[in-house]
Amino acid sequence: MKMTAKLYELEQGRHEVVLNYHDAVEWSLFSGDRVSVSFKGQEIVAILDLSKEAVGRGMIGIFSEVWHELGMGDGDIIEVSKIGVPKTAGYIKKKLDRNELTHAEISEIFKDLMDERLTGEELSSFIAALYLNGATVNETIGLINSIKDSGKAFSFKNMSKKKILSLHSVGGVAGDRITMIVVPIIASLGFIIPKTAARAISSASGTADTMEVLCRVDLTYTELKAVIDKAKGCVAWGGSNEIAPADDRLIKIRYSLHMDPTPLLLSSILAKKKAEGAELVLLDLPLGKGCKLETLDAARDLAMQFEQLAKNIGIDLKPVISDGSAPTSSGIGPVLEARTVLRCLKGETDELLEKSCQFAGLLLFHSGEVKTKDEGYALALRQIKSGAALRKFREIIKAQGGNGDVEPEDLEIGKFKVQIKADRSGRITHISNKGISAMCRAVGCPGEKKAGMILKKQVGEKVKPGDVLFEMVATSKEKADYALNEAKTISVCEIERVVIEEM
Amino acid sequence: MKMTAKLYELEQGRHEVVLNYHDAVEWSLFSGDRVSVSFKGQEIVAILDLSKEAVGRGMIGIFSEVWHELGMGDGDIIEVSKIGVPKTAGYIKKKLDRNELTHAEISEIFKDLMDERLTGEELSSFIAALYLNGATVNETIGLINSIKDSGKAFSFKNMSKKKILSLHSVGGVAGDRITMIVVPIIASLGFIIPKTAARAISSASGTADTMEVLCRVDLTYTELKAVIDKAKGCVAWGGSNEIAPADDRLIKIRYSLHMDPTPLLLSSILAKKKAEGAELVLLDLPLGKGCKLETLDAARDLAMQFEQLAKNIGIDLKPVISDGSAPTSSGIGPVLEARTVLRCLKGETDELLEKSCQFAGLLLFHSGEVKTKDEGYALALRQIKSGAALRKFREIIKAQGGNGDVEPEDLEIGKFKVQIKADRSGRITHISNKGISAMCRAVGCPGEKKAGMILKKQVGEKVKPGDVLFEMVATSKEKADYALNEAKTISVCEIERVVIEEM
Repeated sequence: MKMTAKLYELEQGRHEVVLNYHDAVEWSLFSGDRVSVSFKGQEIVAILDLSKEAVGRGMIGIFSEVWHELGMGDGDIIEVSKIGVPKTAGYIKKKLDRNELTHAEISEIFKDLMDERLTGEELSSFIAALYLNGATVNETIGLINSIKDSGKAFSFKNMSKKKILSLHSVGGVAGDRITMIVVPIIASLGFIIPKTAARAISSASGTADTMEVLCRVDLTYTELKAVIDKAKGCVAWGGSNEIAPADDRLIKIRYSLHMDPTPLLLSSILAKKKAEGAELVLLDLPLGKGCKLETLDAARDLAMQFEQLAKNIGIDLKPVISDGSAPTSSGIGPVLEARTVLRCLKGETDELLEKSCQFAGLLLFHSGEVKTKDEGYALALRQIKSGAALRKFREIIKAQGGNGDVEPEDLEIGKFKVQIKADRSGRITHISNKGISAMCRAVGCPGEKKAGMILKKQVGEKVKPGDVLFEMVATSKEKADYALNEAKTISVCEIERVVIEEM
Repeated sequence: MKMTAKLYELEQGRHEVVLNYHDAVEWSLFSGDRVSVSFKGQEIVAILDLSKEAVGRGMIGIFSEVWHELGMGDGDIIEVSKIGVPKTAGYIKKKLDRNELTHAEISEIFKDLMDERLTGEELSSFIAALYLNGATVNETIGLINSIKDSGKAFSFKNMSKKKILSLHSVGGVAGDRITMIVVPIIASLGFIIPKTAARAISSASGTADTMEVLCRVDLTYTELKAVIDKAKGCVAWGGSNEIAPADDRLIKIRYSLHMDPTPLLLSSILAKKKAEGAELVLLDLPLGKGCKLETLDAARDLAMQFEQLAKNIGIDLKPVISDGSAPTSSGIGPVLEARTVLRCLKGETDELLEKSCQFAGLLLFHSGEVKTKDEGYALALRQIKSGAALRKFREIIKAQGGNGDVEPEDLEIGKFKVQIKADRSGRITHISNKGISAMCRAVGCPGEKKAGMILKKQVGEKVKPGDVLFEMVATSKEKADYALNEAKTISVCEIERVVIEEM
């Protein structure tokens, strides 16, 4: 059908076009159908919306993404045709019906995902199928390759005789910003470590959010390459450099239901590491109450799956099961965490130091740089004590467009504080990562970088009524008061109860 | 947050608002998040989209549905606040994790579905969970009640001492329009039979599409009541009278993946029958190659599930397993089928007659109107032969706003015909319902009411090369040629092959 374009200057976040309801009825088109939109030899697929009034008969309403991409103007004549449900919807159904998908089928699903030929509803069903039916090793390798192939990939092999290193944590521990310390330690020893990290999805801050306090993290593919050329290491956001973009689309869908199928968890991480060009990866699996992994068996099982799959795609992956039962540092929130990182690198605090040196030490050991794990630890610690890691970190910050001379004191936090106090006495038996996230979200983290929480007590400490457990930091009195009120229902510090029930 | 409204005159088919990207980052809002939009004491929930340019900072882009509903004008100040993921997303996750949902939880899911608090992706996961994990009897009753309660319900009890009757077919057989004959037979005997029917989803025509050739089918709740008052029977479209609207939303999501979880199939049908106010329902389960039900065991199992659930909600349901291996009439497509219905009622054709009289007879028998099934059949046939059913049908057409004096000859079909011929000799062993649908869709059915197919041969007939198997009817030469081309790859009539393989 030939239609007249009516342009809407508005981004929709997806390809979408609007036809008149009566035209649609005539051509047996329904809202949500896929149509092909062609102009001057270029074609894209868009999802159809219907309008009864605003878009007249013979017209097609077109949003910014589509008209920008096809370079059309208001009133241009556009060719529109219905396209059926894509073949890949059948592959999703096949997986729902508990059949194994081939690599080719998985690859086509991801191609259609990137071309927006599959709807959110269809992709959600695909995720549900993986969640409920799992995936074979073969399917998971297909997922890894397809996610990797959805974007660009780096290769730094010809830049260094040493192995290309990386690290990754499955996450879930508040204040766990060791990446920002391990990367400069490793890079200061001449290794290439092209680390891409995530933004927070439900927590107070992700590594990318915290790094963003100091410099840009939304590096394009070319910019990231230039940073590595200059500084050997980087801490960039994984969402802007065209690495594994398919994964971001899936995460968006999985988010609200917390539907994390293990095959997608595995393939998302491994695809990104592969695309980063990493050859040796240290994988942190935090274990403990309130973590993603709550039993040693579950952690060991996941570790083995990661190792096996990584081997299949040519990555030497070393899993480390770490203690994730308490937050790694006491200041939670982007600016507070960035301060701790700088202070740790300057030798002004022990927070983050131990875990960072152990992890950097293991990377150095496994890469063959040193003979024993102890030597690795010692070498990592020396890079901090000598100031070499700090200098490298400043170099990275500068290369990523930040102020390389930044000092912890330069980083301002919110001016409004409220204290949350113990209402009973006892020993603190647990500090909840989920509770911390909920409280920090209440003061606006991670969007509000200056907000956050300062823990005043640690697990094991004794408290009495009135002792300050933690402080909330906010950028307005309203947000501080809101947090104080939220604290009534959100449990952060658990204080032991001796009497469980009175008879 | 207080935002300035920027109105877009465009329907989006859902509640959607647009904020500036930078505002969203500051408030930790993501595209796809749910926000509450309030104006003058009224509140609705909308899904968030982000814009980098078109919607400036401090502004909120609002589409027709939302601004109409809240009665706002351009530049009005709107209160916007983030609302979290609804509790019901947790219930969906619970079902994904193979736990049983309570009636209260299911009811809340459907309330949030109707208020647009759940996204298409979340609902799709709910459907996938039902598809893969099934549902208990108790959950299915919860589904029935929730779907029914999503809309209005009829009660005709005080209008008649006789039982309120209805019938339903799980569908899948081309040209099966017996409803349009059974309804007038039954209504002509003083019964109330308030039948709502579906439009075609993937077939050539649904009962509602065919009835629409003769009169309006998009009756509102009030209009449907008035039609029953006047004519005792109706054949209306189920999508416009506020009956079980939640079901339509789910069907839209299930459509592209053909994901039909049995619990939703059962509850969708029973919820609609309950909302129609039916007390006795005849359920047609067509069985045969290419039908939804392909084995007797599967049909019996489904029949028993229907019976048991119906009993639980106070409906006396009688399942009938019928022969669905071949199309019920030879003219397929809205106008062609409407012609056959009129001709059958006028006694001009035997097509549809036998099945209609058997089904009407069973309804009469089970309602206690007659003593035996044979008496029921005879009474039904008499209503046709005497012209009483035709008179009643004309009355219904008139009550639904159509021309009560319509004759089959008045109904025009497309002027462009192409013939599809046998290319080999043999007996026709099967006529595929799916092949018929695909061919009819190729000429524009059901949107193009005058288009369709005329079958020239039946199962069991012998053919030789060059014999016409069927004719395609189209409204333009282009569409007719297109169908002719499609016929090369779509199989409609299977002609037996004696030699399976030559060695």
